[in-house]
Amino acid sequence: MNILLIDPININNNRTVICETKSWHILNILKLKKGDKIRVGIINGKMGTGKILSTATGRVTLEIECSIKAPSHPEIQLILAMPRPKVLRRILKSISSAGIKSIYLINCLKVEKSYWQTPLLTQANINEALISGLEQSVDTILPKINLRTLFKPFVEDELSRISQSTKKLIAHPDAKNSCPTSVKNSMTIVIGPEGGFSEYEVTKFEEIDFMSVNIGQRILSVETAVPYILGRVARI
Amino acid sequence: MNILLIDPININNNRTVICETKSWHILNILKLKKGDKIRVGIINGKMGTGKILSTATGRVTLEIECSIKAPSHPEIQLILAMPRPKVLRRILKSISSAGIKSIYLINCLKVEKSYWQTPLLTQANINEALISGLEQSVDTILPKINLRTLFKPFVEDELSRISQSTKKLIAHPDAKNSCPTSVKNSMTIVIGPEGGFSEYEVTKFEEIDFMSVNIGQRILSVETAVPYILGRVARI
Repeated sequence: MNILLIDPININNNRTVICETKSWHILNILKLKKGDKIRVGIINGKMGTGKILSTATGRVTLEIECSIKAPSHPEIQLILAMPRPKVLRRILKSISSAGIKSIYLINCLKVEKSYWQTPLLTQANINEALISGLEQSVDTILPKINLRTLFKPFVEDELSRISQSTKKLIAHPDAKNSCPTSVKNSMTIVIGPEGGFSEYEVTKFEEIDFMSVNIGQRILSVETAVPYILGRVARI
Repeated sequence: MNILLIDPININNNRTVICETKSWHILNILKLKKGDKIRVGIINGKMGTGKILSTATGRVTLEIECSIKAPSHPEIQLILAMPRPKVLRRILKSISSAGIKSIYLINCLKVEKSYWQTPLLTQANINEALISGLEQSVDTILPKINLRTLFKPFVEDELSRISQSTKKLIAHPDAKNSCPTSVKNSMTIVIGPEGGFSEYEVTKFEEIDFMSVNIGQRILSVETAVPYILGRVARI
């Protein structure tokens, strides 16, 4: 945790009381005490510092002062086949830490129906993973997660609209072109499931002008492929 | 698992009996049966196919034929501050799947002493993680892992020698230069611990001509930073 994020709903007169778990972390891992300062941010707001006013009954009370803008973010929308529940949290955290603000989790042939039933898909659990990514990377702007359980309507009706005037890439092992580096345009990037998209699915993306690109000869897990591709295309 | 890797010690007259865990995967997840074929590779050797001869008592017997060379790999040595045991296995798997063949896990100020005591550091456990990465990415060549528990002798005596005539980069959030993309040279890349290298440590690397590079404004976890950087510098 490189910044402590605070829900604005919990701030009153620039003061906030931190939950037990995070208070424990502040007191026992960071070993801070009354009077010490910690880097804080307001979710979807500014960043600054929090001064510890009290640590009574194991709950930290902070006086916060935030005037620093969140860092700029890459103009990348990520369209990701719904990952296995086991890796979903880690992938969301990783994407969030890389500064991506718009994520669509979509259905396709190789996504098992059961993936959509996981309790990890509640807004609270998704937010917990995303906030954890922001607290890693020092950012406050919560990514927006969109769930799309119907492949065809999403690609045919919605995707062509939301990807308009962006550079459109789909990662595909059989592609002839290799994934570009340090891309200047805003982008929409599609990454498939562990078993890959079907030929039909790839065709549907290509029909709305997505370019298939490979990331080398190796098949990477989604968990590795996502940061591998984001690092590749990022303009830093 | 996109390829089943076999230890050459277990092959006799082109036949091999697969262990119970992997036999279970072949029969129950991949749903293969007698007569079916599966992609196989010999560890540190060639790739090809295995034909299922028998599935008696839940153990798969294969007849294997391997004549395809393993894919070429990036000329990158990775010097990594020893990660927390909790993420070590995943990071090794990820690095192995990205085709890296030479990895040094090193000590530094922010690496806790206890990290070196983890049972995950036995050769068997390390190999299990690395093989899992190769089975993901369809490769057979096992990376070589080197453990270096003394920072100063490693950097002063060994690193300048092994990094000779390679492009030398160290990832560092405060660096002025940003990480290059699609690098043609062979490379040695240093990635620090979650808490970052100390200024003294960064200076030691810079003294032997390592260039500090940043990967943007965000602080990424090691798990995300490793594929992010590898994807960035890879020439594909």
